[in-house]
Amino acid sequence: MSLDRIRRRLQRRNLDALLVTQPENRHYLSGYTASDHGIAGSAGVLLIPATSQPYLLTDGRYRLQAEEQAPEFQVRVYHRGLLPLLRRLFTSLRLQRLAFESHYLLHSVYCDLTKLAERKKVELVPLVGLVEDLRQIKNEAELALIVAAVRINEEVFATVYPQLRPGMSEREVARLIEETMHQRGAQGPSFPTIVAAGANAAKPHAVPTARLIAQGEPIIIDMGLKIDGYCSDMTRTVVLGRPDGRILELIRLVRRAQLAGQQALRAGVSGSFVDQVARQVITEAGYGDYFAHGLGHGVGLNVHEGPYLSYRNRQQLRPGMVLTVEPGIYLPGWGGVRLENMAVITANGCRILNQDTTFLDV
Amino acid sequence: MSLDRIRRRLQRRNLDALLVTQPENRHYLSGYTASDHGIAGSAGVLLIPATSQPYLLTDGRYRLQAEEQAPEFQVRVYHRGLLPLLRRLFTSLRLQRLAFESHYLLHSVYCDLTKLAERKKVELVPLVGLVEDLRQIKNEAELALIVAAVRINEEVFATVYPQLRPGMSEREVARLIEETMHQRGAQGPSFPTIVAAGANAAKPHAVPTARLIAQGEPIIIDMGLKIDGYCSDMTRTVVLGRPDGRILELIRLVRRAQLAGQQALRAGVSGSFVDQVARQVITEAGYGDYFAHGLGHGVGLNVHEGPYLSYRNRQQLRPGMVLTVEPGIYLPGWGGVRLENMAVITANGCRILNQDTTFLDV
Repeated sequence: MSLDRIRRRLQRRNLDALLVTQPENRHYLSGYTASDHGIAGSAGVLLIPATSQPYLLTDGRYRLQAEEQAPEFQVRVYHRGLLPLLRRLFTSLRLQRLAFESHYLLHSVYCDLTKLAERKKVELVPLVGLVEDLRQIKNEAELALIVAAVRINEEVFATVYPQLRPGMSEREVARLIEETMHQRGAQGPSFPTIVAAGANAAKPHAVPTARLIAQGEPIIIDMGLKIDGYCSDMTRTVVLGRPDGRILELIRLVRRAQLAGQQALRAGVSGSFVDQVARQVITEAGYGDYFAHGLGHGVGLNVHEGPYLSYRNRQQLRPGMVLTVEPGIYLPGWGGVRLENMAVITANGCRILNQDTTFLDV
Repeated sequence: MSLDRIRRRLQRRNLDALLVTQPENRHYLSGYTASDHGIAGSAGVLLIPATSQPYLLTDGRYRLQAEEQAPEFQVRVYHRGLLPLLRRLFTSLRLQRLAFESHYLLHSVYCDLTKLAERKKVELVPLVGLVEDLRQIKNEAELALIVAAVRINEEVFATVYPQLRPGMSEREVARLIEETMHQRGAQGPSFPTIVAAGANAAKPHAVPTARLIAQGEPIIIDMGLKIDGYCSDMTRTVVLGRPDGRILELIRLVRRAQLAGQQALRAGVSGSFVDQVARQVITEAGYGDYFAHGLGHGVGLNVHEGPYLSYRNRQQLRPGMVLTVEPGIYLPGWGGVRLENMAVITANGCRILNQDTTFLDV
């Protein structure tokens, strides 16, 4: 069905085919789940003609997996790189206008592709986000996987939280979380788990260190996992023992900003509007300079994908979009507070996917 | 010192600066170790003028980490994306010719950068592999980390191998391996651990499944870990219980090919020569069609990096290069065998970094 929608869009734009290089788009359209080793170590690409059967092009190492997982696709194996195989397909499919994913093709590969296209008189048309646009709206099956990923993530948190003790290292806690994810059947974390205590919590993207967690300091735990490729993402800020007045103040402030954002999140408004509503709560309290990232992002096959809740996103939100709402305040040298839930936009507002209310403990 | 070499190379080519977007190059030159969320989720870039102090450009989330880890660099934070900050630096540094990493810049970013460069009358010069070329030759400190990564990887294997039992799933074994890596102090696996038993072992890049491992079948275990960013990579093929004649034949054949490759590996020969020497052993035994990948690859900050032992690499190997030697034979429907060691090229031959000889058990 997604394939049909892509084909119709190609036809409308008078494009003969689309070359899909972005790995989550490849998974989304074909069902083929192999992992790339970074952008330079691709496990294959899709070539989707506007009016005929699609191809999955990969190398010999992935042939069996591709054939098993992508039965709608003709699997073609390249032995000496992708370009010689593409050259043959340019001819056999009589391509004249080929779209490619400008946002997931390296400049160097583009240069090689250009030379080939010139020889074959194929016009290359850069596209950004054609498949990603489809992916923003989740269908029921996708939503079920995301809901499962959120639920299991919360179970993991609920298992680990009571085990936290002063003297455990950030890294030890992160390992315990990821180990528990695997025990609960997750495919793996959707990003490297963040456990950041005390001053480390002032880094929104902290990497867990050997630092030991202590009583009374803010501990940011940002964690997510994957179920059949679909991601969850949740942040909690916890304190062992009695929190001091500043932590209490900041957690309550961030929670107020989150609630304001969640209440503003609905179809028809823009991502920048929702960001602005939550940000204003923090700005009015005098901490605006310390909330140095966007309010949220889409979640699906990528843990970070569109749409974004950011000053940059003027597009209207639509039902079926799944987003995080994650305001934070980071004070260099002291620490930070972030709270993150996931929500799906519905016909009349949004539904919060998280049920954990640990922040009420603090 | 690496920075000085880069600056000299820029001066020789009459380039005013290099924009470093490749994350391992960034780590190599600056010491800054933040992880990107894929190519579209960069944790920062370097701008290295040919004759003045270098810059690390990142967003607010990474400021503290960047300042801590890269004291030689001026850290500049962008609030509204990289390009507006670059525009200001183009002016203040009076850039005229800016080199960029063509092999690690997305086409879409290149298009935006081109517009900016045209307005500022800056010439963009695509480069491929300038920093990677330096990285191919490891210094003593790097080699020490790689040797540690290999040694700990072997300790992990030696811990897990005696625990293997029929009825464990591939995934369970992979988890046990990665768990043991963390217990031994590794930063993490250098790639998702492969455990592929029976027919799954016919996929060189198999993902561990729920399939239970059984007596008598070939089990490919391909594993590696990171120590301070530097990687190891090792493959063993093991059998629980008594191997049949075919497995014995193939393991011995693959081992002979590996020994031939290891003996051919030395300074002055090309990567394609070493590949050819090992491949010939397998081809002469009639299995040439079933060895569908290159013989090996460089290992360093990337688990797959240059130089490659492949028909494509005509460049001479040099002392200080670290490579894998990993012939394999994959029979669809039956399974496969692969053996992989790492070696460093020395003044007179190479030194094999692995000491594990589990293949002698089979």
